[in-house]
Amino acid sequence: MKTRAAVAFEAKRPLEIVEVDLEGPRAGEVLVEIKATGVCHTDAYTLDGLDSEGIFPSILGHEGAGVVVEVGPGVTSVAVGDHVIPLYTPECRQCKSCLSRKTNLCTAIRGTQGKGLMPDGTSRFSYKGQPIAHYMGCSTFSNYTVLPEIAVAKIRRDAPFDKACYVGCGVTTGVGAVVNTAKVEPGANCVVFGLGGIGLNVIQGLKMVGADMIVGVDINPSKEEWGRRFGMTHFVDPRGVDDVVAHLVELTGGGADYTFDCTGNTAVMRQALEACHRGWGESVIIGVAEAGREISTRPFQLVTGRVWRGSAFGGARGRTDTPKIVDWYMDGKIEIDPMITHTLPLERINEAFDLMHAGESIRSVIVY
Amino acid sequence: MKTRAAVAFEAKRPLEIVEVDLEGPRAGEVLVEIKATGVCHTDAYTLDGLDSEGIFPSILGHEGAGVVVEVGPGVTSVAVGDHVIPLYTPECRQCKSCLSRKTNLCTAIRGTQGKGLMPDGTSRFSYKGQPIAHYMGCSTFSNYTVLPEIAVAKIRRDAPFDKACYVGCGVTTGVGAVVNTAKVEPGANCVVFGLGGIGLNVIQGLKMVGADMIVGVDINPSKEEWGRRFGMTHFVDPRGVDDVVAHLVELTGGGADYTFDCTGNTAVMRQALEACHRGWGESVIIGVAEAGREISTRPFQLVTGRVWRGSAFGGARGRTDTPKIVDWYMDGKIEIDPMITHTLPLERINEAFDLMHAGESIRSVIVY
Repeated sequence: MKTRAAVAFEAKRPLEIVEVDLEGPRAGEVLVEIKATGVCHTDAYTLDGLDSEGIFPSILGHEGAGVVVEVGPGVTSVAVGDHVIPLYTPECRQCKSCLSRKTNLCTAIRGTQGKGLMPDGTSRFSYKGQPIAHYMGCSTFSNYTVLPEIAVAKIRRDAPFDKACYVGCGVTTGVGAVVNTAKVEPGANCVVFGLGGIGLNVIQGLKMVGADMIVGVDINPSKEEWGRRFGMTHFVDPRGVDDVVAHLVELTGGGADYTFDCTGNTAVMRQALEACHRGWGESVIIGVAEAGREISTRPFQLVTGRVWRGSAFGGARGRTDTPKIVDWYMDGKIEIDPMITHTLPLERINEAFDLMHAGESIRSVIVY
Repeated sequence: MKTRAAVAFEAKRPLEIVEVDLEGPRAGEVLVEIKATGVCHTDAYTLDGLDSEGIFPSILGHEGAGVVVEVGPGVTSVAVGDHVIPLYTPECRQCKSCLSRKTNLCTAIRGTQGKGLMPDGTSRFSYKGQPIAHYMGCSTFSNYTVLPEIAVAKIRRDAPFDKACYVGCGVTTGVGAVVNTAKVEPGANCVVFGLGGIGLNVIQGLKMVGADMIVGVDINPSKEEWGRRFGMTHFVDPRGVDDVVAHLVELTGGGADYTFDCTGNTAVMRQALEACHRGWGESVIIGVAEAGREISTRPFQLVTGRVWRGSAFGGARGRTDTPKIVDWYMDGKIEIDPMITHTLPLERINEAFDLMHAGESIRSVIVY
């Protein structure tokens, strides 16, 4: 079949909207009509050529929502007509990781996914006879895409696509880091570094689970209003204090129970750890650092009880936990609508990248 | 009263055995006759002048066992005749840390203890009219010592003092890191870096809880026999392999579930983290690093599921958990006797330091 898609022919060049060829689903695969997709920093990271493992030409996009329109042989867990979210972190429920009960990082198709291929080692996309790579196992910047069955989460049918798509990455990454990774308990004092989309979703996750103090830290004072909108109780601009760690330790009465780095800046990651309470404070790294950057601290920080961990896709098991987060949104436990600052047709997808680079959007969503 | 003690008059000089003056216990304090005490690397670290906060003159020693011979006003939890282990990590059961249920690092008397003083801000020891500092709240290199009631653990009376004393630091630090900090589960694959006294106690803790693979890593091949004696299943000499992290990841089938640094070397701490399994491996820092040294890694190591934490006094609550470890010893669940390689009278305490510096002892114990 043919499908309209935004193709990244090479790094550092705008996407081009073209008709590409898409093969139908093979065994264990499904064809999904993408109805909406968010444009995320990770897409930009790849398009800007910053990912040394980036592959071109490819069809980017990993934060979508759509409808199953065809299933390949042997597919049992979803059917034509099901509403689904594509998963860049699949959930096979069979591999060592899935069976460990300790991680969401399913490894069933990691090798081929990293190479831009389907699990059988081939691509379904092509343009003028040349294969085009899949991206993060999703390629949601195509109106139709093929996905492994283990890489789609079935969600309720009444969830609007143009909001539910954000659960495919940003919402789950932030809310999940609170719920699944840190397992924050009611009454906790928490600090969130970086009030972009991920930071705001961490904040609303903290509000949902009943945290007491939700401190937001950002060098952009215009973020304060956004933070408070989603439950932030205190705002700190690091440039307004002598020593941000000492300030946060004092503000939280001895240090935070949980801190979250949503900046990707390794110096901030250290501050986030050291702002934790002696004895038990845990710091969660969510932000993705520049290649080659390292985190450091004195081991004394850990020996006296602080814990350093990270979170990928919010520690959420794709097929099990993602639908629950859609339910939380539909039940009003978390918000998505005000974070979708821009909704654009596919033809204007390059504007979404521009808005993001200029810091003028929380999230832009493309609707087909 | 007078008591015989080994006094550290200044750094880098042998201890001197003299008669010092000891005031009796004040409110909330107890007088303990020390029957035996281990000599630990931390005592040597202070005596060698490496601890910038070391205080002289002082009476070192923090790994003892003895009998309560007098109690001050208001003492209710122990009585004359009780057998006790002095605690450098007390347990007041009242402070924010004790009530958190998340840490063993009681803060009730931290300020005065760090200054070499009893909680009321004075010392009980003096020599020729000049005060002598307490050390780590214990000063077990004195035949009699005064301790806060919250800093003694009551243990069973049939435990031999010259073995039970080792529970006051080394045994609890190693076994407790497994049981309390890492909470290792049966079947886990584990790696222990550094096979000194702490490493051996980690190993026997791992054996006790049913770990599958217990890999010991040490650059001294003579440690292999010691490791196997306590349950080590595999030995790795890092000098015999190209890349110790890659070797350990392969040996453990993808990385360890838990690793323990018992070296104090920050480069080894990094290896210990990176030898953990993607998705869930946890690394526990037990060793104390040189002042100024820092640990580093790529944040990707944490974002993909590894956890970095530390352990102090094995995460053991002093009064609650230490007596249990004595019970485990008496019940044969863990061993102590073969680790006590030397038993000496107080007069020969400087020999214990020499043995330790020369790497010729696992643990030397002084008996009064």
